[in-house]
Amino acid sequence: MSHVSPAFAPVFGNCIKLLRKVLYTESGQPFLVAGSGTLGWDAVAANLIEKDEKALVLNTGYFGEAFADCLSLYGADVTQLGAPLGGAPIKKQITEALKKDKYKVLTFTHVDTSTGVLSNAKMIAETVKEVSPETLVVLDGVCAVASEEIRFDDWGIDVVISATQKGLGVPPGLSVVVASQKALKVFEQRKSLPASYYISWAKWLPVMKNYEAGTPSYFATPPVQLIYALETSLKTIMEGKVSLEERFKMHRETSVKFKTAMKDMGFKLLPLSDDTSANGMSAVYFPDGFKAPDILPKMLKRDIVVAAGLHKDVKDRYFRVGHMGVTVVNPERGDMEKIIKGIQDSFAEAGYKVPSGSA
Amino acid sequence: MSHVSPAFAPVFGNCIKLLRKVLYTESGQPFLVAGSGTLGWDAVAANLIEKDEKALVLNTGYFGEAFADCLSLYGADVTQLGAPLGGAPIKKQITEALKKDKYKVLTFTHVDTSTGVLSNAKMIAETVKEVSPETLVVLDGVCAVASEEIRFDDWGIDVVISATQKGLGVPPGLSVVVASQKALKVFEQRKSLPASYYISWAKWLPVMKNYEAGTPSYFATPPVQLIYALETSLKTIMEGKVSLEERFKMHRETSVKFKTAMKDMGFKLLPLSDDTSANGMSAVYFPDGFKAPDILPKMLKRDIVVAAGLHKDVKDRYFRVGHMGVTVVNPERGDMEKIIKGIQDSFAEAGYKVPSGSA
Repeated sequence: MSHVSPAFAPVFGNCIKLLRKVLYTESGQPFLVAGSGTLGWDAVAANLIEKDEKALVLNTGYFGEAFADCLSLYGADVTQLGAPLGGAPIKKQITEALKKDKYKVLTFTHVDTSTGVLSNAKMIAETVKEVSPETLVVLDGVCAVASEEIRFDDWGIDVVISATQKGLGVPPGLSVVVASQKALKVFEQRKSLPASYYISWAKWLPVMKNYEAGTPSYFATPPVQLIYALETSLKTIMEGKVSLEERFKMHRETSVKFKTAMKDMGFKLLPLSDDTSANGMSAVYFPDGFKAPDILPKMLKRDIVVAAGLHKDVKDRYFRVGHMGVTVVNPERGDMEKIIKGIQDSFAEAGYKVPSGSA
Repeated sequence: MSHVSPAFAPVFGNCIKLLRKVLYTESGQPFLVAGSGTLGWDAVAANLIEKDEKALVLNTGYFGEAFADCLSLYGADVTQLGAPLGGAPIKKQITEALKKDKYKVLTFTHVDTSTGVLSNAKMIAETVKEVSPETLVVLDGVCAVASEEIRFDDWGIDVVISATQKGLGVPPGLSVVVASQKALKVFEQRKSLPASYYISWAKWLPVMKNYEAGTPSYFATPPVQLIYALETSLKTIMEGKVSLEERFKMHRETSVKFKTAMKDMGFKLLPLSDDTSANGMSAVYFPDGFKAPDILPKMLKRDIVVAAGLHKDVKDRYFRVGHMGVTVVNPERGDMEKIIKGIQDSFAEAGYKVPSGSA
């Protein structure tokens, strides 16, 4: 299928329209570009930041840290607001930071995959509206879109960054960014050119508008097959047997089920509280005396691929498990039971004994 | 398949190794990153150019022009060397330009898809070595890799930029860049940071080296399925029944066959001479009185998707046909016969009569 084929344009257009629905937005402008989720950081930095403009980055793990690096590289004057490992900045801290200085953008990682920490997107956006309404609210939703509720218009989010391979259930390779009309206005008013050629919104905005109107348009070749896959997935999400609200509820319930199973084994979770725990994934500390090389191959043997640690402070001390998309919404697959049993069996095989009083 | 799965790393590594063979290079360093071919321009501009450094762009159509825009955006001081529509800068012009000024990079579009013009890559690289050996030679091979011969080491090319959806016969969505050790040294010696986060070679070089050594590594998620597809295609190219030399010969022969059929219909080609004609595609002028909307839907009805014009000077006056990859190397498919007949029938249906003396 050619990207300029008349048959392809409506598929691309449909992705744009359905994506708005997943994020509960009427006027948000999606950008679908070949690339990974990381490219979304460049999109924000290159299109919304000009040299020495201030950015406040709420840091809840590796991805907050890296987003800050990206913003700095494009000339932003970045302030990071951190939290103890497993926690997230609280309202009071955010309010104080916003009062202390005027920021062009505030960014946060909705789910930081390195820690399994969930940020309170609604509270963050509300706080910005209260204290510094001109500041753009940027939500990094790579590991959150379609597994965590995001009410783009109601909460007043200005940019959502995502990728296809997490909650959207599509192969990796497609960068998904949605910008509010307010963000687009800020972009239009910038004095310098966008600092990237490939991810310049000046190049992509007309292309997205054309495809939405059913007309093929060219700046750079879109990943045609991934657009088809995304349309299929978005249709399933918006028009399938499970409503969007039900989808989020199922993610919350499955998360509790998985985390309870881990606690029952005597394992500790990275997030410090249930309030800051992601619903589409879990970060779980190894029990004392166990490490990734002892356990991960044993899981692999059982067809379970989990990720090793990523946060620099505790890299070798925990593992990460995704539970999102079909795994959650199609329980008849039995994925969760298989994953929990596989983890239990792998630890048992490695000689781990569940402490009495745990399960 | 997870990108950090141990089963995936050797596939990625194999792509890197096989890609070197397709370009006849021992030490060229491939970079495979989610993105379209256009991202390769940013890779060159952001990694090899620092503010106000000089770039000489040989312009043979839309893609030369756009590459120049990209380089300028990243701060390069760009000089363009043009040619009449359908032609390419000749050795004398290139020599003079290189003598007049000192350029950090020279770029050219091996095949400019907007005009069907083939640049003489060997001559260009030789001229640079003769006149300005320090200048890096950058070949934009989006529409050339695997359909036109590129002898990276022998000719002294420093960067090849490409994408997967043309001669490599893989869906779009993967940016392919190969850099010489000389180019990497120039990169390492730059004074400022790379001007892009997403496509920074500082981020990607260790990842590529790790994957080649068989170890999964992370900076941004690779498009796993496209990497598998690329491995399959590269294996077919390097280990299939047709040798690489034979592949290029078949592209040349098929191109002559197609272009002859167009001339027999009384059509003119955009390239001014056979020497500057691409072998993997053709750009063909409509005969007087015919335009894209008259003809393209008639071709589409016959399952033939051709592209409309792209070069601003003659946008509505020509169409473009790809003849590369399986279409060429698997003649038993009968693609070329079908395409030629489909074009003939479409024009006949539109009332075109082949002038006497043409066929």
